Amino acid sequence: MAIVRVGFIELWVRDLEKSLEFYQGLLGFRLEHREEGAAYLRGYEELEWSLKLTQAPFPAVRALGFKVDEKGLEQGLAWARQEGVPYRLESDWGRPEILRLQDPFGYPLAFYFKAEKLPRVLQNYHEHRGPGILRIDHLNVFSPRVGEATRFYQEVFGFRLTEYTEDDQGRLWASWLHRKGNVHDIAFTNGEGPRLHHFAYWLPDPLAVLKAADILAGAMRTDQIERGPGRHGISNAMFLYLKDPDGHRIELYTSDYLTVDPDLPPVRWSLNDPRRQTLWGHRTPKSWFLEGSPLLDLEDRLVPTEAPALQGLPEHVT
Amino acid sequence: MAIVRVGFIELWVRDLEKSLEFYQGLLGFRLEHREEGAAYLRGYEELEWSLKLTQAPFPAVRALGFKVDEKGLEQGLAWARQEGVPYRLESDWGRPEILRLQDPFGYPLAFYFKAEKLPRVLQNYHEHRGPGILRIDHLNVFSPRVGEATRFYQEVFGFRLTEYTEDDQGRLWASWLHRKGNVHDIAFTNGEGPRLHHFAYWLPDPLAVLKAADILAGAMRTDQIERGPGRHGISNAMFLYLKDPDGHRIELYTSDYLTVDPDLPPVRWSLNDPRRQTLWGHRTPKSWFLEGSPLLDLEDRLVPTEAPALQGLPEHVT
Amino acid sequence: MAIVRVGFIELWVRDLEKSLEFYQGLLGFRLEHREEGAAYLRGYEELEWSLKLTQAPFPAVRALGFKVDEKGLEQGLAWARQEGVPYRLESDWGRPEILRLQDPFGYPLAFYFKAEKLPRVLQNYHEHRGPGILRIDHLNVFSPRVGEATRFYQEVFGFRLTEYTEDDQGRLWASWLHRKGNVHDIAFTNGEGPRLHHFAYWLPDPLAVLKAADILAGAMRTDQIERGPGRHGISNAMFLYLKDPDGHRIELYTSDYLTVDPDLPPVRWSLNDPRRQTLWGHRTPKSWFLEGSPLLDLEDRLVPTEAPALQGLPEHVT
Amino acid sequence: MAIVRVGFIELWVRDLEKSLEFYQGLLGFRLEHREEGAAYLRGYEELEWSLKLTQAPFPAVRALGFKVDEKGLEQGLAWARQEGVPYRLESDWGRPEILRLQDPFGYPLAFYFKAEKLPRVLQNYHEHRGPGILRIDHLNVFSPRVGEATRFYQEVFGFRLTEYTEDDQGRLWASWLHRKGNVHDIAFTNGEGPRLHHFAYWLPDPLAVLKAADILAGAMRTDQIERGPGRHGISNAMFLYLKDPDGHRIELYTSDYLTVDPDLPPVRWSLNDPRRQTLWGHRTPKSWFLEGSPLLDLEDRLVPTEAPALQGLPEHVT
Ligand SMILES: [Ca+2]
Ligand SMILES: [Fe+2]
Ligand SMILES: [Fe+2]
Ligand SMILES: [Fe+2]
Ligand SMILES: [Fe+2]
Repeated sequence: MAIVRVGFIELWVRDLEKSLEFYQGLLGFRLEHREEGAAYLRGYEELEWSLKLTQAPFPAVRALGFKVDEKGLEQGLAWARQEGVPYRLESDWGRPEILRLQDPFGYPLAFYFKAEKLPRVLQNYHEHRGPGILRIDHLNVFSPRVGEATRFYQEVFGFRLTEYTEDDQGRLWASWLHRKGNVHDIAFTNGEGPRLHHFAYWLPDPLAVLKAADILAGAMRTDQIERGPGRHGISNAMFLYLKDPDGHRIELYTSDYLTVDPDLPPVRWSLNDPRRQTLWGHRTPKSWFLEGSPLLDLEDRLVPTEAPALQGLPEHVT
Repeated sequence: MAIVRVGFIELWVRDLEKSLEFYQGLLGFRLEHREEGAAYLRGYEELEWSLKLTQAPFPAVRALGFKVDEKGLEQGLAWARQEGVPYRLESDWGRPEILRLQDPFGYPLAFYFKAEKLPRVLQNYHEHRGPGILRIDHLNVFSPRVGEATRFYQEVFGFRLTEYTEDDQGRLWASWLHRKGNVHDIAFTNGEGPRLHHFAYWLPDPLAVLKAADILAGAMRTDQIERGPGRHGISNAMFLYLKDPDGHRIELYTSDYLTVDPDLPPVRWSLNDPRRQTLWGHRTPKSWFLEGSPLLDLEDRLVPTEAPALQGLPEHVT
Repeated sequence: MAIVRVGFIELWVRDLEKSLEFYQGLLGFRLEHREEGAAYLRGYEELEWSLKLTQAPFPAVRALGFKVDEKGLEQGLAWARQEGVPYRLESDWGRPEILRLQDPFGYPLAFYFKAEKLPRVLQNYHEHRGPGILRIDHLNVFSPRVGEATRFYQEVFGFRLTEYTEDDQGRLWASWLHRKGNVHDIAFTNGEGPRLHHFAYWLPDPLAVLKAADILAGAMRTDQIERGPGRHGISNAMFLYLKDPDGHRIELYTSDYLTVDPDLPPVRWSLNDPRRQTLWGHRTPKSWFLEGSPLLDLEDRLVPTEAPALQGLPEHVT
Repeated sequence: MAIVRVGFIELWVRDLEKSLEFYQGLLGFRLEHREEGAAYLRGYEELEWSLKLTQAPFPAVRALGFKVDEKGLEQGLAWARQEGVPYRLESDWGRPEILRLQDPFGYPLAFYFKAEKLPRVLQNYHEHRGPGILRIDHLNVFSPRVGEATRFYQEVFGFRLTEYTEDDQGRLWASWLHRKGNVHDIAFTNGEGPRLHHFAYWLPDPLAVLKAADILAGAMRTDQIERGPGRHGISNAMFLYLKDPDGHRIELYTSDYLTVDPDLPPVRWSLNDPRRQTLWGHRTPKSWFLEGSPLLDLEDRLVPTEAPALQGLPEHVT
């Protein structure tokens, strides 16, 4: 199943107006479509929507979306049937065919190829607002079995490893896996799961990351700035982690590197390297290692979670 | 007369709505007040308005405003009476006392100290729009007698010279003079005058200058981009020159240097140094040397102009 | 033949010391290896060298290098034999197997997969110099038959079209083709050819592009700044074009966009759109349309060129 | 005594080579002069040296230097005699006349006007290294009597208040005072004193602040990054605090605002406002409130300190 890239995320939110005030009003996402209880947004570079917000009784993640190639849907369907995982064909606004399935770890994936293209607004700079959200970059999920999930996503879904974190005993604590040619489309982080850790959008440059923090501060919402701005050791990207009004974590991210070489050697990080999380040595707040968003299965029921096999937190936590 | 800094400019514009679409809509100036036929705007750092646009039958400049210290108005008044130059006391929105006078070269100056302070919005980053206009930085005027005007503004008004352009025979073609401690509050440029060459606003950083160009381009208004973005040799600042809907030239400017030392040696530039206008060697369009805005006298009549004593253009003109 | 990305360029230069003063001294390329008459350089993100400079009697381009996948070399060899194009296997420093061949248009291509990896220095920020050259981004070549070459590179080499320029009669003047997932690995430009138009390196952000111009100006080498800094309409990237001491044109480039979607619609530009070359409407110097570097065939003889079928220059040329 | 601006700082360091490796090697200060046991450095915008490092048995601050106007030295001398504070006339490299005196709070001040001008290197961009240190911006000192010191520096030395921090009972915890027209030349911070809290240099733009952090991280010296990068609430500037090899704290600082208006209303901050220290709400490390550099009197003996009257730390401390 040829996955092209991460494509979208669908979030359950408790108050759609509040969420839009955050995503559209402060972060400047383009609102492209609204219908009964749902909103579809995109970044300025995207030709397809990438963020769907759905009014719901509690916060959760309904789908982790991936763009596949022309034959991907058919192959995914064959695979789902063969493996016996739950699956379903759906359609959504501008996406006539979506294959939803729950992978063996419980993640609610959604594969699609066909998409109605929205008008190109990348160079409509006079319409850009906020820090200039460009495109969805990656998903990061908690997993109690990082090693297993990493192997599965490599072998079955064809992801490629770019960086990883190990402890002194060689146990895998986190992995970064890509399809599209930068550091990741998906990352696995050790922790109670399956849950979403965060989703991330690409910004035009490091100053835009600072601008996002300024905007939150200007709006007197520093409590929603969880971590950063900073530069990651892992990925080398500039980052800022925000909590949306429902506690979903969004990362603003930019300036990692090209990973298309088939012989690219993955970068190994030691769990307690102070430069791993933030190259500048900043400590990471404990919430960052513990809090995440619950997932929904194909029947919109909460996916049960398990505690991680690897216990404890890294050093360099505040 | 202790002048503190350049304070404002008052422009006659033919279509106030069109002008506001440009200054407020594209450049993100804050509109603070409107009354019959006039609009008052400011940058995000300013506590006082700095740009007044007045609906009028033709484009012109009604006032070149300077903030003075507490005793400045009285001293200015005494000076105007003694010299016999035309003068008048006025008030305007938020400025109860303005001394308007026409200097011996014909420039319509306006001095004021008292100003109602507007709310501080520098850190209301969620409200900032456009490239982030911060504050008025300087005025640049055409003069047919640059040498004379430069001496007068130094001796009578207390300006201090930071940079100047000379030809091979030691004749002064342009001068940069300051009060507030950066490269200039006013500059004189050889040419038919007295006229306004341009007025300039300070931006937060060089990327903001690029953003301004992107915004104009996004709005399909590249014809209003006259010159730049570039870095000046003179002043070392990043710049962009735009023409507003009436042809008034506004410069977006940032990152010059501190000039408060009393023993600061002025920087001399040779007229035909390719790095003078743009450090990177770019040629300057001919319009930049020829076009300017007419001035109004205290009776709102056009100030007559004369041709410059120094004829010809520098090299490095397109 | 699965091409992964553009990989390197090999230039003949007349004075290796002068070239190193430019590439290493001013632009900050890392010099990784020198041997008799040749130098191997890379950007800070690269794990393989990407620029080879060879002391030679006249300026020329000896190879346009592309990284292929594991089977690429074998497939390329089979293709070369089948098509009867000139080819040869070579090795170079850190690259044990290089397949050199001359394509039907005369371009001297070099395919390789295996490469000794150099130490990772991306995060050795204390060692970075100059504007921070990161990685080779693309090659741009003159072709007298852009339409034909574009089709061939799509059909035979698997490149994908992202943007193109047409005149009013629908004739193709230029095309941008990629493998690695951004706007291009190679572009074809109408003109006397085959010749190299330029090669391009990726910079970390738009400020780095300005910094490169500042560095050239600081070193009193504004005559080597041919065009820019500016933002391209095509590709949306920030750019700066420099001429090296032999007249080879290097572009510093950053911030284009992701192109991995199989259904990405190519962007069409009209030949005389003022925003095409520079989004801000800047005119392009005539030299940019006329000057290029000659190519060498596999015997190091100059490849003969022909005049383009499409005559004339676009508007918006200085 | 007309003080123009902060002018220099003279530090005692235990290992001059190590200090130069930090200031010159990593931060890119220009080393202008070395003599037996001392080094004189400057930023790229400065025409005079601003940092003197002297090899010494223990870390300390020997002088807090201020540039005065032509009559300043004479006036200072008269004042010192009249007040009976310790004083002495000295000369140093490139500074023929320096009036050193110890103010009533124990701070070792040094006033000078005359200075040999060094060559202008602001536009020698090809020679700039590190984040691009431009000029000394301010000094920040611990004081056990902030209210008293603030009044004295306003009334006697003519400084002007721009921002200040108060607790709920209206007691002054910190003050920012300027002469040169931006937020401060000197700041007083409540704490054991008199001691130096930090000295600060101006960088060209916010990206340069990030670059400084990257450089320290690249050199594996994250332990010398004490706080930031971040944006101050107070001053609105981007900042980074580093500890030099002797524990002296240097701030890299940029992008505050213009303060020349005589009627500028000072900005009041509440001691426990989370946006005061860092606009983004980041907590400040405890070391930042406690650690400082000891001062030397005119005989090079340590100036005794006293505990502050106001006890306790603000909230938002890690
Ligand atoms: Ca932090
Ligand atoms: Fe992430
Ligand atoms: Fe100007
Ligand atoms: Fe290019
Ligand atoms: Fe400070």
